Amino acid sequence: MRFDIVTLFPDSFISVLSSGLLGKALAKKIAEINLVNPRDFTTDKHRKVDDEPYGGGVGMLMKPEPIFKAVESLPILPRREVILMSPQGQTINQPLLRELATNYDQLIVICGHYEGVDERVQHLVTREVSLGDFVLTGGEIPAMALINGVMRLLPGTVGKAESLQSESFEEGLLDYPQYTRPANFRGWKVPDVLLSGNHAAIAKWRYEQQLKRTRDRRPDLLNSGE
Amino acid sequence: MRFDIVTLFPDSFISVLSSGLLGKALAKKIAEINLVNPRDFTTDKHRKVDDEPYGGGVGMLMKPEPIFKAVESLPILPRREVILMSPQGQTINQPLLRELATNYDQLIVICGHYEGVDERVQHLVTREVSLGDFVLTGGEIPAMALINGVMRLLPGTVGKAESLQSESFEEGLLDYPQYTRPANFRGWKVPDVLLSGNHAAIAKWRYEQQLKRTRDRRPDLLNSGE
Repeated sequence: MRFDIVTLFPDSFISVLSSGLLGKALAKKIAEINLVNPRDFTTDKHRKVDDEPYGGGVGMLMKPEPIFKAVESLPILPRREVILMSPQGQTINQPLLRELATNYDQLIVICGHYEGVDERVQHLVTREVSLGDFVLTGGEIPAMALINGVMRLLPGTVGKAESLQSESFEEGLLDYPQYTRPANFRGWKVPDVLLSGNHAAIAKWRYEQQLKRTRDRRPDLLNSGE
Repeated sequence: MRFDIVTLFPDSFISVLSSGLLGKALAKKIAEINLVNPRDFTTDKHRKVDDEPYGGGVGMLMKPEPIFKAVESLPILPRREVILMSPQGQTINQPLLRELATNYDQLIVICGHYEGVDERVQHLVTREVSLGDFVLTGGEIPAMALINGVMRLLPGTVGKAESLQSESFEEGLLDYPQYTRPANFRGWKVPDVLLSGNHAAIAKWRYEQQLKRTRDRRPDLLNSGE
């Protein structure tokens, strides 16, 4: 999978996407990340990437031309999606990450900045994706989340395939509580069942905990019918 | 506002939280970021921060002790919240960011990693926060999102206060389309109303666009009654 990130802040991405599991995936060539800066595609002396909004209003918008040129400079792989990170898009969830990890060879991810992006960038974009119902200073962190979430689903990134199956949201439930050593930490003990060696009892307990937790904290997940 | 980030990957944060607006907020001492690594609080030779889950299962969990010690090493400010980033938590949204920006002097943000965190860390935590209904390799990117979203709401970070008022989610609506120069880009023109200079007409058009967009893309926001 090839990721092309269109961003005014390419330096932000290096350490975030190259540590831990994702660093190994890059080393194994499971994924490749390319950074492209719209500022490198400006033609004026001041390398201007933003301008004032028509109709008034505070803040600056990203101009369309440098973004178009940045995207047009990229190679074109067969199954390609051009994604704009913006609060107006489809909210990231696990099915979306899985779809992107499965159906594409190239994801171009455009990070908005300043107060927003000129609407005409929509002509370039095949999908608009939002991190959630909140506002950040730019699309860089949302892009990191998208890319991290997609990369870890690529075959070979996470060691054991089962590790992706029994986790939050894959079954529409929250995860169960987990414990590791010591069995007694400051007086707080690991539940007996987990020390019992009885695999059926452990599986039952974990499933009950998943249901209880989801019911208590996120009843909307149980009612979504997915 | 003081942010203490408890993470196995402190290097990831530096460039992400020090560029652009947030870098200026740090320089102006509006916010202060401190990184603390649980690995520095291990006592064994291998500086082990993770271990296998009781009851079996794939993947490794973060041990409780290094996290407790890391948090206990921090100074205690009056209004303090200890937040664990985890998919089991309350989903980040704009009201949550605003609450955190308003009501606290110190946010301690614990980033989970590996397959999860020993459940007993809950005894340390006052709030569990999720980035959304999807899974990432760790809590670092979710922590960046939380901190970015809170920092930009602190007085003085964003230049003009109005800039925070008329944006996505503050009024329960998506933002309106925005345009900047050129007025004609590759044949795609800026809507006439925005060039009209008629402020009442512009305000009306923008509000209609917000309603239409929210209805088309996120009818759930209109029905939430917030």
